[in-house]
Amino acid sequence: MKNWIIFLLTVIAVFLLALLANSIIDRKAEARFAYQPQVEIEGIEPRDSVWGLNYPRQYQSYRKTADTTFRGLYSTSGFADVLDDQPELVILWAGYAFSKDYNQPRGHSHAITDIVSTARVGSPWKEGEGPMPSTCWTCKSTDVPRLMDEIGVTEFYSEKFSDFGSEIINPIGCADCHDPKTMNLTITRPALVEAFEAMGKNVDDASHQEMRSLVCAQCHVEYYFDKNLPGKEGAAYLKFPWEDGLTVEAMEEYYDNVDFADWVHPLSKTKMLKAQHPDYEIFSMGVHAKRGVSCADCHMPYKTEGGQKFTDHHIGSPLANVESSCFVCHRESKDDLITDVYERQRKIKEGTGYLQKQIAKAHIEAKKAWDLGATEEQMADILLNIRHAQWRWDFSVASHGAAFHAPLETSRIVSSGTGKIQEARIKLARVLADLGHNEPVELPDLNNKEVLQEYIGLDMPAEVENKKRFLEEVVPRWLKEGREREAANLPVTSVRNN
Amino acid sequence: MKNWIIFLLTVIAVFLLALLANSIIDRKAEARFAYQPQVEIEGIEPRDSVWGLNYPRQYQSYRKTADTTFRGLYSTSGFADVLDDQPELVILWAGYAFSKDYNQPRGHSHAITDIVSTARVGSPWKEGEGPMPSTCWTCKSTDVPRLMDEIGVTEFYSEKFSDFGSEIINPIGCADCHDPKTMNLTITRPALVEAFEAMGKNVDDASHQEMRSLVCAQCHVEYYFDKNLPGKEGAAYLKFPWEDGLTVEAMEEYYDNVDFADWVHPLSKTKMLKAQHPDYEIFSMGVHAKRGVSCADCHMPYKTEGGQKFTDHHIGSPLANVESSCFVCHRESKDDLITDVYERQRKIKEGTGYLQKQIAKAHIEAKKAWDLGATEEQMADILLNIRHAQWRWDFSVASHGAAFHAPLETSRIVSSGTGKIQEARIKLARVLADLGHNEPVELPDLNNKEVLQEYIGLDMPAEVENKKRFLEEVVPRWLKEGREREAANLPVTSVRNN
Repeated sequence: MKNWIIFLLTVIAVFLLALLANSIIDRKAEARFAYQPQVEIEGIEPRDSVWGLNYPRQYQSYRKTADTTFRGLYSTSGFADVLDDQPELVILWAGYAFSKDYNQPRGHSHAITDIVSTARVGSPWKEGEGPMPSTCWTCKSTDVPRLMDEIGVTEFYSEKFSDFGSEIINPIGCADCHDPKTMNLTITRPALVEAFEAMGKNVDDASHQEMRSLVCAQCHVEYYFDKNLPGKEGAAYLKFPWEDGLTVEAMEEYYDNVDFADWVHPLSKTKMLKAQHPDYEIFSMGVHAKRGVSCADCHMPYKTEGGQKFTDHHIGSPLANVESSCFVCHRESKDDLITDVYERQRKIKEGTGYLQKQIAKAHIEAKKAWDLGATEEQMADILLNIRHAQWRWDFSVASHGAAFHAPLETSRIVSSGTGKIQEARIKLARVLADLGHNEPVELPDLNNKEVLQEYIGLDMPAEVENKKRFLEEVVPRWLKEGREREAANLPVTSVRNN
Repeated sequence: MKNWIIFLLTVIAVFLLALLANSIIDRKAEARFAYQPQVEIEGIEPRDSVWGLNYPRQYQSYRKTADTTFRGLYSTSGFADVLDDQPELVILWAGYAFSKDYNQPRGHSHAITDIVSTARVGSPWKEGEGPMPSTCWTCKSTDVPRLMDEIGVTEFYSEKFSDFGSEIINPIGCADCHDPKTMNLTITRPALVEAFEAMGKNVDDASHQEMRSLVCAQCHVEYYFDKNLPGKEGAAYLKFPWEDGLTVEAMEEYYDNVDFADWVHPLSKTKMLKAQHPDYEIFSMGVHAKRGVSCADCHMPYKTEGGQKFTDHHIGSPLANVESSCFVCHRESKDDLITDVYERQRKIKEGTGYLQKQIAKAHIEAKKAWDLGATEEQMADILLNIRHAQWRWDFSVASHGAAFHAPLETSRIVSSGTGKIQEARIKLARVLADLGHNEPVELPDLNNKEVLQEYIGLDMPAEVENKKRFLEEVVPRWLKEGREREAANLPVTSVRNN
């Protein structure tokens, strides 16, 4: 009888333990919560807040891209105004909007705020006004795929920036990278698809791991606006110059072959190239890419919260989150890893810092040569050297992560740019001597942004004043009209019966 | 009864199995053979063959340093004559012995053969003749510590190269790095000990892992001959310029401060620095050093033979032996790893290849300026730029492994050298224009070694003829006298009673 009681008690105890263990290890309830859509997303939904109803963890972590507290190596002094920190850039970009205003980048959430705030896009009072084409919006908003779908791609590229002020009000978000039905990663920007086609590839063949970089490569690449595309005249058609390869030399050759210039430099009269942000291209030449690492592996590492593993959508510097990013593969101390990155950045910065000063001098020396009566023939080689040198310099610095993503490739590019500008300046010295000026050319104060902006003919006080009024009057109107349009047109989200 | 038989048979079978297993797994017999000295080594024994009686595996693997079959990236075409491959180096080293002859390095076994064969040391017929001091022998032979012990360190540095021809006959070997009593790694060259002292450190404090690099750092470093050391006048005293640090800038500053020059360039009149082979310094700035890897970890990886683990003394390129070297830490394919190394080498070579051509031009342009009557004052800055540019270039290339050991540091140095030579050549263009020569300076054929050697005033046919006679007549005599001296003086090795 006694044994029988012990047996029964044991059975009960084991049963209760199993219940407890199951409640501890079972994540099904969490999974149901996490992956069960609450709302049905119709069409191209530009509002993250709607997606967030279904994917609260991803949405909440993505909202943290508004966070600007992380400061890297060159932000420790708190500066955000790059032109103030490195005034000689005003000379390099004379005649181009970057000479007016160039700030350190901020998170995706700020995309709309930052583009309307920069002096680069001007202060257009009315639709159809202003210096920039509508193409400038392409990488800034989830309203872009919606608008492209509604009006057509070429049509999207064919207006003014000011034409879409009230159409584009949601910053970069869910709809830029995700298919709303399957949540698969998807390419929403035609330029990347077309660039793959031009290389004889199909972006649809990309693996999931490749897509974890390619969704970023929709925007984080070198690109240009082709204004002479047959059949698409009148559009500033967004293109990647990838046909001959992704190296700095291959793209330079591409641009040279199609005789493309972003602008003509007003001092040196050089047909200039502006490198955008060839992040994907440079990353693909580094050791992390070679080892199969994707952008998301470091910039969006996996995270666990409440028993749920998900991708951290707080996209930003992996250095702000070494434990989740680097530590997955690297076993060194956090301080060691960060020091390694900063050391690479410092070594590259030494080279680019020197090079950009030489390029500034070359532009001013070339101006002097023109002023003294230099001929086109005398200057042709010199201008080609300046074009190539600044292209290489810009390629190295415009991709903010270059010094880490592919340090040696970046340093190689800087060395080659230094060689090119050397050749320009040696030839300039000879041309100047020929024209009777055999001494160093007098330079404006290369350490003063305001002095240099005046030197290149900018009226910055007027620009700033216009921008102030633009931000007070135009932008709030754009936003109000946009919200009203959304309220009237966008589908009401239907709550699913779960 | 039946069970009893089965039991007995099992006992016997198990006993036999145990015997077999023991004979398979027991390594005691091997260990006794491997680590039991066969002979007692007396004093400083320069002959590897004697050490080899005690340590046959290490000795036999070390003898493989004679093997020259491995070909790296830039040896695939089979060239050994670097000047023939890159003739502009003749200009860079004009007035210095390297302009006569510079071959790709070979293994340790060839140290004596190669130094007496190179045109750099001349062809001295008698003791006391020839261009080189005895200090040139310092890194070539196990006879060096023996001789330093016998006659004194300063005395060793105070003769001519030709004075020790019959004293130094054994190439780099066991006695250079090992204590014969304990077989511990040991420093036999005073320059490293003194360099540590000058930095306020004690090389005796080094850990075993550090010693696995420091024994190499006895020779694989930047060094110079100090001919004005107080109290040691008359000696070409071997020193490492490490007092201010191990970076290229720190050593440059050291040399500038003590106003040192290896030679004065006959074309440009620049007070030149010859970088030797700052392998240890550059290695210490790379990621492998940072992660605690030593030279021996890759160049002398552990190996197992006949059940014995030992250090492979076949010192050479780790690429010849990726399985034992890289694979210890890296899990990539052999081809991937080798491609990674070659890619680094190619990227650095692009920069150094360009830079050395610019330096060659600068020397020739400076000569032209002098010829046209340039003043010391006009040339001072230019010559300092040339000095610094070539020092940086040489620092990057003279350390053969630099492109792999610390690729980004090396590329940084190349960029800075490119900047320095740019400044020299821009100023040269102005000085030349001042002197009435405002056009590119005419250059000899920079692609032809013979043309350039003649251009700088070398009589290479005579050098080659002298060298031939020297190798036929003098060197065999040195060797014969050396062998006789050894037979007469070196202790007979006493066989131990084991």
